[in-house]
Amino acid sequence: MISVVILGAGNVATHLYKAFKTTENVNVLQWYNRNIEAISSFKNEVDITDNLSQLAEADVYIVSVSDDAVKGLTKKLPFENRLVVHTSGTVKISDIDKKHHKGVFYPLQSFSKSAKLDFANVPICIEAITSEDYHLLKDMAIAIGSPTKKVNSDQRKVLHLAAVFVNNFTNQLYRVAHEITESEGAEFDLLKPLILETAKKVQDLSPYMAQTGPAKRDDKKTLDKHTKLLTNPHHKDIYDLLTKSIQHTHGRKKL
Amino acid sequence: MISVVILGAGNVATHLYKAFKTTENVNVLQWYNRNIEAISSFKNEVDITDNLSQLAEADVYIVSVSDDAVKGLTKKLPFENRLVVHTSGTVKISDIDKKHHKGVFYPLQSFSKSAKLDFANVPICIEAITSEDYHLLKDMAIAIGSPTKKVNSDQRKVLHLAAVFVNNFTNQLYRVAHEITESEGAEFDLLKPLILETAKKVQDLSPYMAQTGPAKRDDKKTLDKHTKLLTNPHHKDIYDLLTKSIQHTHGRKKL
Repeated sequence: MISVVILGAGNVATHLYKAFKTTENVNVLQWYNRNIEAISSFKNEVDITDNLSQLAEADVYIVSVSDDAVKGLTKKLPFENRLVVHTSGTVKISDIDKKHHKGVFYPLQSFSKSAKLDFANVPICIEAITSEDYHLLKDMAIAIGSPTKKVNSDQRKVLHLAAVFVNNFTNQLYRVAHEITESEGAEFDLLKPLILETAKKVQDLSPYMAQTGPAKRDDKKTLDKHTKLLTNPHHKDIYDLLTKSIQHTHGRKKL
Repeated sequence: MISVVILGAGNVATHLYKAFKTTENVNVLQWYNRNIEAISSFKNEVDITDNLSQLAEADVYIVSVSDDAVKGLTKKLPFENRLVVHTSGTVKISDIDKKHHKGVFYPLQSFSKSAKLDFANVPICIEAITSEDYHLLKDMAIAIGSPTKKVNSDQRKVLHLAAVFVNNFTNQLYRVAHEITESEGAEFDLLKPLILETAKKVQDLSPYMAQTGPAKRDDKKTLDKHTKLLTNPHHKDIYDLLTKSIQHTHGRKKL
């Protein structure tokens, strides 16, 4: 049984708390937040506190606060030589104060407050200094059913960056598609199966192999038709840049 | 029972043929292709031909050839006053020769030669001149389990354009993410659950509501970190443009 104290009350902290609560092998001893109101609804099922000097003794302290706050909070913790991990994609492991055993437990997924999350679909990127700490963090991930991967700070940074491309930027392309279809009274809903299929396709095929369409084929007539249809200059900028990008990847054009 | 002749041997034609073959309510009488070799492997299960003068009499002729070829081929058909439809997202219904009853049967999905396709996930955009033709095309779609929608030529054009954004361009973002992760020896595979989740999220939520991330939050520190990590100037162009796009959508910045 791994005993855990969670620090922070954001989406990641809350989803981790809920996932740990359902497992046999992880015991959440305590939940800390600077503003105790944010976690007060859980007070009947777990010990909550807003007082760092009252933190319980645990195997792991999971610091899941805003990126900027990791350094300061880990410094203020009134103990040393215990395993303290953060959950951020962009914060270096060395930002955790040096008096602690340091680690990172970074769940690579998009977290919304409301949506249910199955941790089987959340790869945990683990970084640790010692093998013992690494295996403890790995067991903690396994307990909630997550796949795990050893990822160093440089790799984690690029994964976080790449996640912005496949999540935020992809979602913005959906948004643009929404604007384009609505402008003609067409239904964005008709695109939803295609959106899903596009994501499913690269589960087994590389994005390179999965590519199709007028840019890849260098189908100038269709590219021309599309350019003429685009009345919003901003949509046109995106169309031009990503068309160029596809043509570059598939050997049609120099950038 | 709707009798059908298919003309063309591309991905759409082949997938439609296979889907119709499994249904009770559609009978593929004949399959035409200019180059008969391309369909010769089906000769034991359907009448194949490369001779327009030998086309069978059917309820519907499905012309599924390259966009440029629709006009010429429908003109050459040696009959009139029969229902002739094309399957293209960008070709006008009026490109079908005027001697025919015209229609469009546009499956809005990405078709690969090899991948299996469940037509339940392929909305069919239908356009027709008469109500009778419309209902016949609708029944043909229902026979293969597809949802249908009445879509005029202008709406179809923007749907085709929007499909490029959610399919080709999204896939190119996956490709860029692949390049970024590989550059640090990180695993693209770790992003696959996020890719799926991003697509699933907009099945129930608008892309506007689904957006998260540093651009939406105007989190300058993270935006800065990312910009510094991007060594490929082309990746940086995409990062900058889509960040600006998100900020514009979410009221952070004027374009």
